[in-house]
Amino acid sequence: MNDVIYLDNSATTPVEEPVIEAMLPYLRTEYGNASSFHGSGRAARRAIDSTREIIAGHLGILPEEIVFTAGATEANNLAIIGSAYASTNRKHIVTSSIEHHAVLHTAEWLRTQGFELTVVDVDSTGLVDPEAIREAIRDDTLLVSVMAGNNEIGTIQPIGEIGRLCKERGILFHSDAVQAYGKVDLPMDAVDFLSISAHKFHGPKGVGFLFARKGTKLTPLLHGGGHERGLRSGTENVPGIVGLGAATELVFTEHDEITTRMKRFRERLIDRVLQIAGTRLNGHRTECLPHIANFSFQAIEGESLIMRLDEHGIMASTGSACSSPDLEASHVLVAIGVPLSMAHGSLRISTGRQTTDAEIETFLDALPQVVEDLRAISPFKVGE
Amino acid sequence: MNDVIYLDNSATTPVEEPVIEAMLPYLRTEYGNASSFHGSGRAARRAIDSTREIIAGHLGILPEEIVFTAGATEANNLAIIGSAYASTNRKHIVTSSIEHHAVLHTAEWLRTQGFELTVVDVDSTGLVDPEAIREAIRDDTLLVSVMAGNNEIGTIQPIGEIGRLCKERGILFHSDAVQAYGKVDLPMDAVDFLSISAHKFHGPKGVGFLFARKGTKLTPLLHGGGHERGLRSGTENVPGIVGLGAATELVFTEHDEITTRMKRFRERLIDRVLQIAGTRLNGHRTECLPHIANFSFQAIEGESLIMRLDEHGIMASTGSACSSPDLEASHVLVAIGVPLSMAHGSLRISTGRQTTDAEIETFLDALPQVVEDLRAISPFKVGE
Repeated sequence: MNDVIYLDNSATTPVEEPVIEAMLPYLRTEYGNASSFHGSGRAARRAIDSTREIIAGHLGILPEEIVFTAGATEANNLAIIGSAYASTNRKHIVTSSIEHHAVLHTAEWLRTQGFELTVVDVDSTGLVDPEAIREAIRDDTLLVSVMAGNNEIGTIQPIGEIGRLCKERGILFHSDAVQAYGKVDLPMDAVDFLSISAHKFHGPKGVGFLFARKGTKLTPLLHGGGHERGLRSGTENVPGIVGLGAATELVFTEHDEITTRMKRFRERLIDRVLQIAGTRLNGHRTECLPHIANFSFQAIEGESLIMRLDEHGIMASTGSACSSPDLEASHVLVAIGVPLSMAHGSLRISTGRQTTDAEIETFLDALPQVVEDLRAISPFKVGE
Repeated sequence: MNDVIYLDNSATTPVEEPVIEAMLPYLRTEYGNASSFHGSGRAARRAIDSTREIIAGHLGILPEEIVFTAGATEANNLAIIGSAYASTNRKHIVTSSIEHHAVLHTAEWLRTQGFELTVVDVDSTGLVDPEAIREAIRDDTLLVSVMAGNNEIGTIQPIGEIGRLCKERGILFHSDAVQAYGKVDLPMDAVDFLSISAHKFHGPKGVGFLFARKGTKLTPLLHGGGHERGLRSGTENVPGIVGLGAATELVFTEHDEITTRMKRFRERLIDRVLQIAGTRLNGHRTECLPHIANFSFQAIEGESLIMRLDEHGIMASTGSACSSPDLEASHVLVAIGVPLSMAHGSLRISTGRQTTDAEIETFLDALPQVVEDLRAISPFKVGE
C-alpha cells in the first residue's frame, strides 16, 4: 500500500512502527503464557500488568478496572449482555439510534431474551439530548449506552451529563469510546463501562478493553480459565495487549499535536468540499471528533465514489466500514434525517496520525472531477 | 528468553519466524479493514479468504465452515452456548470430566440458564468410554462435547466413534481439538464443531477458529457488524488470521517429521523419568498426543518443582497453565484417580517444533537432582 492516501482511519489505522517494535519481542522471545509459573510466564504477566498500569494512568482509573478483550465489539457485548445478565430484577435498556451495530444489535438481541429496549432519537446533527435519556429511563432501567463520538459522522455526545443523570438514578452507564479514545477527553468519572479497540488508534487488530468500574457486576460472556479476574477467560493476547499499551502511550503523548492537525484538516475539508454544488456536511459542525468529516453528494452512489477515489489511490469510505458489504443506507445518516438519496451518496473522510497536508490537498484536487464524472453518468440530477 | 529450554508447549508455543514474517505485511502495509470497499480493504479480505482456503484444504472441510475467533476459549463457548441457545426444545448437554475449563465451566454456566448437564467419568488413563456417552445421551440431549486430546495428560479420545454415535441419534458433537490439531489426524466427518487456537501450534495468541459444519445452527455470542456470516461480529484480526494460516501450513507440512521426533522425545522422557523412585506416568501409555508427557512425584509440590527447574532455565508446568494461579489440584488428575498428594506433585513436559534432543537430555540430567533436593526438604517421605 505504498503511495496510497489512506483517509479511512475510522475503519482502521496503520499500526505505527513503535507499536510493532513493542509487540515483536512478545512474538519472538517472550512468548510465555501469562498463567505459567516459570520465568517466561512471569515475563508475560509483567507485560500485561504494565500495560494495565499505562492505560490506567492515562485515563485516571484503576488498573484492575481494565478487562482486556478481543476488541470493542466484544467489550460492548460484555458491557451490555454482561450487565443485563448480572441484573437480578431490572429488564430495561436505553440506547441511541446512532450507536454502532455492536451496541444496537446486541441490545436488540437482548430483547429475544426477555429484556426491553428504548432507542432514543437524535437531532439532525446526531446529538443525543440528555433530557430524552432522562425521559426514557424507567424504574426498571438497568443500563444506558450512549457512544462518546460517532464513528460515521463524528458527533460528540454529552456523555458527562448523561452519565451524571444515570448515576443520580442508580443506573449503569456504558459508552462506546472507540472513536473518541485519544482524540477527546473522556469524563471517566461519569461512566461505569467504556469500550476501546486498539486498531482504531494505530494499535493492532484483535485487541481492546472494557473499562468496568470497580464494584459493578458483570456476567462473563466467555467462560473458562478465569482470566481477567474471571470476567474474560482465554489465554491473554500478550503481543496484542502490549501493542494496545504502546498505541495508548503514543496517542496520549502526542494528543495535542495530532488533534490540532486533525482539526485543521477537517476545517480545510469542510471549506473546500462544500464548495461543490449539491453537497452537505453530515453531523455537527463543531461538536465533532477531530478526525472525521462526513459529506453527502446529490445524484451519486457512495460505492461508485469510493471506487473512483480508489483509482486515484485514495482510500475512504461510505457509510461505516463495519457494515459496508450490505449496501444498505447508513442507519446513522437515516437517523439524522439525511434524505435517502443523499444517504446513499455519502463519503466519510477520516484522518490519522500519518495524514499530511499534501494528502488532503491531493484528495481535494481529485474530488471535484470525480464527483463531476459520476454525476455525468448518473440517472439523477443535482437539485432534483 | 535466550538459552532457556522451553518444555511448556501445551501452554503456548514460540511463534515461528515464517509465521511472524507472514503477519508483518498485514501490520505494516496491508492494514485495511476487510469490510472496506477500497483496495486496502479488498487486500485484507483476500488474505482472510485465502487463509480460510488453506485451513479448509488441510482439514478437508469447506472454507465457509470456518468461523474465526479470538481463540479456542471463544470457539468452545460459541459451540456450546451458541448451539444451546439455538436449540428450540432440547435442554441437555453431555461432556467429560477431563475437558478444559473453557468447556466444563461453559457447560456448567448453562445450568444457570435452565440447561442440564451430564459429566461422564473417564478411566484411570483418561479415556472416555463411548458406551458411557451412549448411556448419558437422553431424548433431549442437544450436544455432546468431548475433547480430541487432553491438554494435561495427552490422552487421545475416540472422537470418531463418539461422533458417529451422536450422528445416529441426531445429536450435535463438539470437540476441543486445541492440543490435537496438527499432531494427530482429526476425523472431521465425525464432528459438527471443532475448536482450534493458533498459539498452541506456533501461531500468534489471540486468534483461533471454530469449525461449524454447514447447516448447523448457532446463536452468536458477539453481536454487531455481522462478520463471519453473522456468527462472530468484530473487525477481523487480519494479521492474526494470516498467522493462523501460516502456522497451519507449517504444522501440516511438517507433520510426519515433527511428530516422529516428538514421539521419540516422549519415549525417552517416560523411560528415564520413571527410573526415579516414587514416580508415575499420568495418562495413557500409547493413546496419547505425541508432545505431552505428564508425571507425578511423591512427596513433592508441583510449584516448587517448576521453580527449581526454572532456576535451571527449564520451563515446564504443573497442572494446566490455564489455571495455574489457583493452586488447586488439577481436575484432570483427580478425575483419573491420581491420589491428591501425587496430583499436587505433577509435572507436565510438552515439546514443540523447536525442541531438540539436547534439550531433552539437559532436562533429564537436571531432574533427578531437583527431585532429590526437594524431597530432602519435604515434610513427606517417598513411599508413604
